Amino acid sequence: MEESKELIHDGLISCLEKLDIPDNLKQAMLYSVKAGGKRLRPVLLFSAFEAYGEDNKKAISSAIALELIHTYSLVHDDLPAMDNDDYRRGKLTNHKVFGEATAILAGDALLTYSFELIANDPLLQDAEKVELIKSLSRASGPKGMVGGQILDMEAENKATSLTELERIHVLKTGELLQFAVYSGAYLGGASTTELAALNDFSYYLGLIFQIQDDILDVTGDSQKMGKQVGSDEGNNKSTYPKLLGLDGAIEQKNMYAKKAKEALKEANAAHSNLMALTDHFSNRDH
Amino acid sequence: MEESKELIHDGLISCLEKLDIPDNLKQAMLYSVKAGGKRLRPVLLFSAFEAYGEDNKKAISSAIALELIHTYSLVHDDLPAMDNDDYRRGKLTNHKVFGEATAILAGDALLTYSFELIANDPLLQDAEKVELIKSLSRASGPKGMVGGQILDMEAENKATSLTELERIHVLKTGELLQFAVYSGAYLGGASTTELAALNDFSYYLGLIFQIQDDILDVTGDSQKMGKQVGSDEGNNKSTYPKLLGLDGAIEQKNMYAKKAKEALKEANAAHSNLMALTDHFSNRDH
Repeated sequence: MEESKELIHDGLISCLEKLDIPDNLKQAMLYSVKAGGKRLRPVLLFSAFEAYGEDNKKAISSAIALELIHTYSLVHDDLPAMDNDDYRRGKLTNHKVFGEATAILAGDALLTYSFELIANDPLLQDAEKVELIKSLSRASGPKGMVGGQILDMEAENKATSLTELERIHVLKTGELLQFAVYSGAYLGGASTTELAALNDFSYYLGLIFQIQDDILDVTGDSQKMGKQVGSDEGNNKSTYPKLLGLDGAIEQKNMYAKKAKEALKEANAAHSNLMALTDHFSNRDH
Repeated sequence: MEESKELIHDGLISCLEKLDIPDNLKQAMLYSVKAGGKRLRPVLLFSAFEAYGEDNKKAISSAIALELIHTYSLVHDDLPAMDNDDYRRGKLTNHKVFGEATAILAGDALLTYSFELIANDPLLQDAEKVELIKSLSRASGPKGMVGGQILDMEAENKATSLTELERIHVLKTGELLQFAVYSGAYLGGASTTELAALNDFSYYLGLIFQIQDDILDVTGDSQKMGKQVGSDEGNNKSTYPKLLGLDGAIEQKNMYAKKAKEALKEANAAHSNLMALTDHFSNRDH
């Protein structure tokens, strides 16, 4: 995992460093990319690749593109018109350092460049590039992440059912996790049946991720997390602990973890790092 | 030209209408797409196609994607943190109707969906999709339009040379026009030599477009243009008329029009609609 994190960190920095673009834009893009922490999505992508394939070089551009899109979404999310956050992971947010206009444009640039990066990867066949771009644009656009962000905004300050809550999370965070697993396994050579089983796996993994996020907002250590805990309570936001109680939320999470692992077995990936990652997602403390 | 405009208008609306996405997001995307006026970029793309090819169906997804990206750039440009415009073409801007957060997300969605649209076009080969996505992401991202927007912001309220001014315009508006010409001709079957000559053509066309924009800001009719004239003066912005005088700007524009037409001859496109479009770009009154 540490190896994947380093690989992705260096790849991210070097692909942005070498861009021939206005310096201020480059610095704004680099700032938020460098501030990134856990690289969960790229690590997940590499793990899915390694469950089926050998040499992960082919997966690098997808992993970088995915992290660039995750980063752009945080830059736009933090804007005053959105969540209005001054800090992320203990560092000033992009717009607090570079100004709002540059932060908006840096987000746009990170998003657009992610597709350019995949389209220009010399290690990929055209058919692979098209499949990856189809899947990444769907997962991050109006049918995926952006759609989920809109629903999330609309759900603020109103009663939300568990079904509605899960739909929001599947779109807002689940779709990019699903892309990580799908694209990694696809490039690694997984079969259609294996990819279908992995689809179930990522669905549960996304929900596990979100339940744990909600749980940490109640029980977490703000020092470790680099952000205030208890903000969901203040925001009057629907969460798993609020809808099911803290014990109920933990139980639901464990049930999903069991299902995720069953799906991994069906996908012939029970031996892989994806198994340990499921526990990692479920038990993380930040 | 009217035919292309209708084709593109209907195509834009119907591809967004049928998206299964949150309604508020769809309405925000449709609002700005419907408000679009001249559809200059798609018209240019179709004209470039028709200079070499027959049935323009293959060019439709690129034309729509291009107009979606142009639209997203206007939605983000109008935001309070950017140009802070309340009206565009006599209609309220996106964020005035849907709020800033939704406008930011609608822009993100239009941008992301444009790549999804090309990647899923059943009329295109994988190699064509990759070439189009390479070219569109480059033209609209940090090396192109977004880079130009950053430079344009930085140039405000300071002395700018003609060379710097042209660099800004080539990036900010020229690159998308260049994509229009390139992608249309490429899909129409232009040869490598013809594409190279068209590259020169679009370079001059972009500058003509911008000089005329600057000229209209001095001499234009605000009724026809649907926006205030004289705003460049107030903004203390570098323009061709300011740097060369009004007559000098017109002379420069005519010189570029001559060069653009020479390039068209070299590209074996002197008979095409691109010839008339050059005059149209040069003499438009709105």
